[in-house]
Amino acid sequence: MKRYLENVRSRMPLIHNITNYVTVNDCANILLACGASPIMADDQNEVEEITGICGGLNINIGTLNSRTIESMLKAGKKANQLGHPVVLDPVGAGASRLRTETAFRIMQNIKLDVVRGNISEIKALAGCASTTQGVDANIADKITEDNLDETVRFAKAFAEKMAVVVAITGAIDIVCNRQTVYVIRNGHPMMAAITGSGCQLSAMIAAYITANPQSVLKATAAAVCAMGLAGECAFSRMSNLDGNSSYRNYIIDSIYNMTPEQLDKGAKYEVR
Amino acid sequence: MKRYLENVRSRMPLIHNITNYVTVNDCANILLACGASPIMADDQNEVEEITGICGGLNINIGTLNSRTIESMLKAGKKANQLGHPVVLDPVGAGASRLRTETAFRIMQNIKLDVVRGNISEIKALAGCASTTQGVDANIADKITEDNLDETVRFAKAFAEKMAVVVAITGAIDIVCNRQTVYVIRNGHPMMAAITGSGCQLSAMIAAYITANPQSVLKATAAAVCAMGLAGECAFSRMSNLDGNSSYRNYIIDSIYNMTPEQLDKGAKYEVR
Amino acid sequence: MKRYLENVRSRMPLIHNITNYVTVNDCANILLACGASPIMADDQNEVEEITGICGGLNINIGTLNSRTIESMLKAGKKANQLGHPVVLDPVGAGASRLRTETAFRIMQNIKLDVVRGNISEIKALAGCASTTQGVDANIADKITEDNLDETVRFAKAFAEKMAVVVAITGAIDIVCNRQTVYVIRNGHPMMAAITGSGCQLSAMIAAYITANPQSVLKATAAAVCAMGLAGECAFSRMSNLDGNSSYRNYIIDSIYNMTPEQLDKGAKYEVR
Repeated sequence: MKRYLENVRSRMPLIHNITNYVTVNDCANILLACGASPIMADDQNEVEEITGICGGLNINIGTLNSRTIESMLKAGKKANQLGHPVVLDPVGAGASRLRTETAFRIMQNIKLDVVRGNISEIKALAGCASTTQGVDANIADKITEDNLDETVRFAKAFAEKMAVVVAITGAIDIVCNRQTVYVIRNGHPMMAAITGSGCQLSAMIAAYITANPQSVLKATAAAVCAMGLAGECAFSRMSNLDGNSSYRNYIIDSIYNMTPEQLDKGAKYEVR
Repeated sequence: MKRYLENVRSRMPLIHNITNYVTVNDCANILLACGASPIMADDQNEVEEITGICGGLNINIGTLNSRTIESMLKAGKKANQLGHPVVLDPVGAGASRLRTETAFRIMQNIKLDVVRGNISEIKALAGCASTTQGVDANIADKITEDNLDETVRFAKAFAEKMAVVVAITGAIDIVCNRQTVYVIRNGHPMMAAITGSGCQLSAMIAAYITANPQSVLKATAAAVCAMGLAGECAFSRMSNLDGNSSYRNYIIDSIYNMTPEQLDKGAKYEVR
Repeated sequence: MKRYLENVRSRMPLIHNITNYVTVNDCANILLACGASPIMADDQNEVEEITGICGGLNINIGTLNSRTIESMLKAGKKANQLGHPVVLDPVGAGASRLRTETAFRIMQNIKLDVVRGNISEIKALAGCASTTQGVDANIADKITEDNLDETVRFAKAFAEKMAVVVAITGAIDIVCNRQTVYVIRNGHPMMAAITGSGCQLSAMIAAYITANPQSVLKATAAAVCAMGLAGECAFSRMSNLDGNSSYRNYIIDSIYNMTPEQLDKGAKYEVR
């Protein structure tokens, strides 16, 4: 895992983010924390140029609107032309037709490298019957040891059909392409008590795969391990008075302070 | 007060927020802190569906624009159809015609359950001569022990005329319907030194009344007490080096850690 | 330097910000921290009125779009009519034609008091060949002791041509009009690891010059010293576990706690 983080820190990829206004500041700070640089730009008249000066693109459909949807498509096409990696975070896919259809439009029109979402969002994209409850995964959908095998099969089928690396994050994380699966057991339940841990991870995945273009699957798994490990480190420093707001800061702090060695040692994954 | 918080934690209401981009992240985190779940969505093509999957709606007109105003109205009408509770936070009403008129349009077209603002904003909505100075209450308007009786009469008249529960927050908070008044003396002056404590409270009121639909007045008073108490708890842990940014985190942390018993014990209110 | 901070605290200027959604919350909190009040409003139908009730205007083109560009121009013209000071932060000028041209449109149509940017952005505005790499200064552009004299000459020429005070911030900060230059050596390299320290400084400059209308150059220099000093103070309280997210909070906290005496004592500048 180590080398993928080392490459982010040494190559300092510049990431273009078209993302929601809820968690945008955290996305910018976590990109800086991991060694990358953020730029946020969502106007149709500049997104292609901004994508052009960046190394990778992170598209997040939370708080999407008709204006920004067009920008996402333009930026994505430009990134494809330039051979830049593209991450899609389909926030709330399944919660509204607009979100589901926008995610489909993006998947149909843009070659994506990684799609990261919770299980409800990915099921919605796969055309499953799951109804996303807001931006969090349905309880019925949650990945557990009991349904892990089934979820892994689903994830591989999705990855194959869409020709992407898929990262399904939750209590257990699954990162896979059509052949190889990383089952990741980093993280802490308290991560569900802050807004934007998923958005932050998607931004960080964009940084990892931009810095490691030959190893998209492994770099994505490394980013997922790093985020989960940061959630663990952050929890371990919580005082009795600290709550979710301090925890949010501590997670970003942990990404900032994470050494390649720490990631190697702390990453808990199995390859299937 | 206790049961209202307990119900938020056990029922975990999903709250649709159409809110400003200044304090939106804090609103999301405080909703998670109190036990609710946030979703932010403001595009006309999805707000009705999003309202449909949520339990309550929080409309906040800070950084409103022509696009989001229509979304507020659409979402509000849908919430009314579904019988979902609706909170209005008329940020900056009185500071511009657009804000005042938008607040009026919302009040005329949507049945609101709670309106929460500072005294200047509520006076502007009542058609008083107050000129809101930005997003903070005018000094001349501030609620003090001297003008409390008068302000209580004003609040009750406003609540009756608008058929809402009104929450006027400041150094002393007033929560009332046309008959019953809660005068609340929780809080700390330093809360005025952070942006968004009012926005956060409005979001939290939406969570409290959604989880306690039969007790809108009392649940609103409980949320106001909880916010004020969090301001007190947060202040008590401040170090010499901490300032308003740490204080902001500590307030959300305090909401996260607040037990029903703590709220019962710490709530300082009289019923008139 | 002392008196400029004292005036912010005693006059409590209300600052209208049309700014990006990435760092807007930090801008609001740092304005409160220094003693000013923020209001954010970007709809064309209200910006003139909002500017009218404020004392100063801060225009920041990060995440600009066609809707907000018009609002920036309207608000700027109104501020000019009223004789209110105006600050421009040309975030990312040089990174896209839209940003560069918008900055030019603003400079041509609005009388600005202060332009604050990094060296790459200011070079782009001066028509130099610098290509801005995202929102951070190019390494090739960085201000060092070696190129300081040259950069000072450039800054003075820019200030004269544009008839503004220019603040070029980086490892060494330069604040000047056509005649007088402040070379400021406050700050800490870690400030580059958080998003928005520049945006926050621009907002704070707006507060300082609004509270000190007769001393725009000196008040700008004082704000730049204050921000750099806050970066130093914040760094000095970092624990081993703290990272860029805690650092962000500590910077705002340091501005909140900064006394006029502390600023006087800590400001490191020479006047040329």
